[in-house]
Amino acid sequence: MKKTTRATRAKGAQSSPEALLDALHSLMIERRGLDVAIADISERSGLNTGLVRYYFKSKNGMLVALLDRIVNLPIRNLRALIDAPITPWEKLKRHLSGLINTHYRYPYMNELVAYLINGTDEEIAKHVYTSSVEPLLIAQRAIIQQGVESGEFRDVDPTFSYFTLTGACDYMFTASYVHRLGLHASEVSDEMRQRYTEHVLNFVRAGLQADVAG
Amino acid sequence: MKKTTRATRAKGAQSSPEALLDALHSLMIERRGLDVAIADISERSGLNTGLVRYYFKSKNGMLVALLDRIVNLPIRNLRALIDAPITPWEKLKRHLSGLINTHYRYPYMNELVAYLINGTDEEIAKHVYTSSVEPLLIAQRAIIQQGVESGEFRDVDPTFSYFTLTGACDYMFTASYVHRLGLHASEVSDEMRQRYTEHVLNFVRAGLQADVAG
Repeated sequence: MKKTTRATRAKGAQSSPEALLDALHSLMIERRGLDVAIADISERSGLNTGLVRYYFKSKNGMLVALLDRIVNLPIRNLRALIDAPITPWEKLKRHLSGLINTHYRYPYMNELVAYLINGTDEEIAKHVYTSSVEPLLIAQRAIIQQGVESGEFRDVDPTFSYFTLTGACDYMFTASYVHRLGLHASEVSDEMRQRYTEHVLNFVRAGLQADVAG
Repeated sequence: MKKTTRATRAKGAQSSPEALLDALHSLMIERRGLDVAIADISERSGLNTGLVRYYFKSKNGMLVALLDRIVNLPIRNLRALIDAPITPWEKLKRHLSGLINTHYRYPYMNELVAYLINGTDEEIAKHVYTSSVEPLLIAQRAIIQQGVESGEFRDVDPTFSYFTLTGACDYMFTASYVHRLGLHASEVSDEMRQRYTEHVLNFVRAGLQADVAG
């Protein structure tokens, strides 16, 4: 752990809030969950605990800041994708690949979102829903609707499809314990992520294909 | 809360461990998560906190007992299904409908399994994996393999299919906050569960259909 601390300190260009968020991220990966204390973040980053309160007010404030940092770019890309001059299937392909990438890099995503939204702080719940979940629901439904209207997809329910597609993309990473305990793999490798993306895209393509309706 | 306590007490035939597990179940549903203290369980069930330690040793012991109670029958049914004299698709249909039912009734399932498996107690982790996750993985892979071999399904990877199918079935319930915050539904109704089952089965049928390969 000492080594990481020094390494983080050595990055002179990095600001303190970024270093704290990096420490939180790496600890949640290692511990396979959200159970990380402010003292651990302090030790890992080499910064004092007071800075967490100074920058983020609380542990939950820090979790929200980390989630915002993760989803910022993907959500912007997704919003742009809705009206991009490509076919609905091409949009869905890019979106689902991106979604799998995000869950590969941040396997604690689903747990983090559920924890913040189901918690007792209604303001945090609304913020997280609006910034991290709603844009996904809106964009996916819009793209599926476009495909249904153009006749490229079967006449599927776009809201139900949001649940099936999102669940199919992220369960591999949310249930990462299956790899550790059942498949004798210490983690999901990048090669596995690529093959899984291909599998999901083939599966979804076949599942949505207009000419196999009924 | 008084009313529930009295109602629970009135069921003379119910044993104390069952009453404690019922109380834990209903509290996790109401609070949309695992954050339930032993004192809450005691108040809800009308039984004293000492009984939790007596029957289950600890809060985690109680969570394991609840999970065992939930999966006992479904897992037995699933094991019998592998060699049942019906087609692989018929097996998959029954299994996926059952899986959706289980997540509809116990929306905290995924969170509970992840919490117990990712925790620090390796004995609990192994027990939960072996009793609740592995049988699902083994049976689903076997059924998909049967369909691939008989030519009924496309040549899909059975392990990857386990992740896509399981995720598609349970995300609707794991991410129940979408209904509350985005779809203006207080909960997933039984009618919605039925329509979702139909959606998933159509989607999976089309996705696995042998004649749309490529």
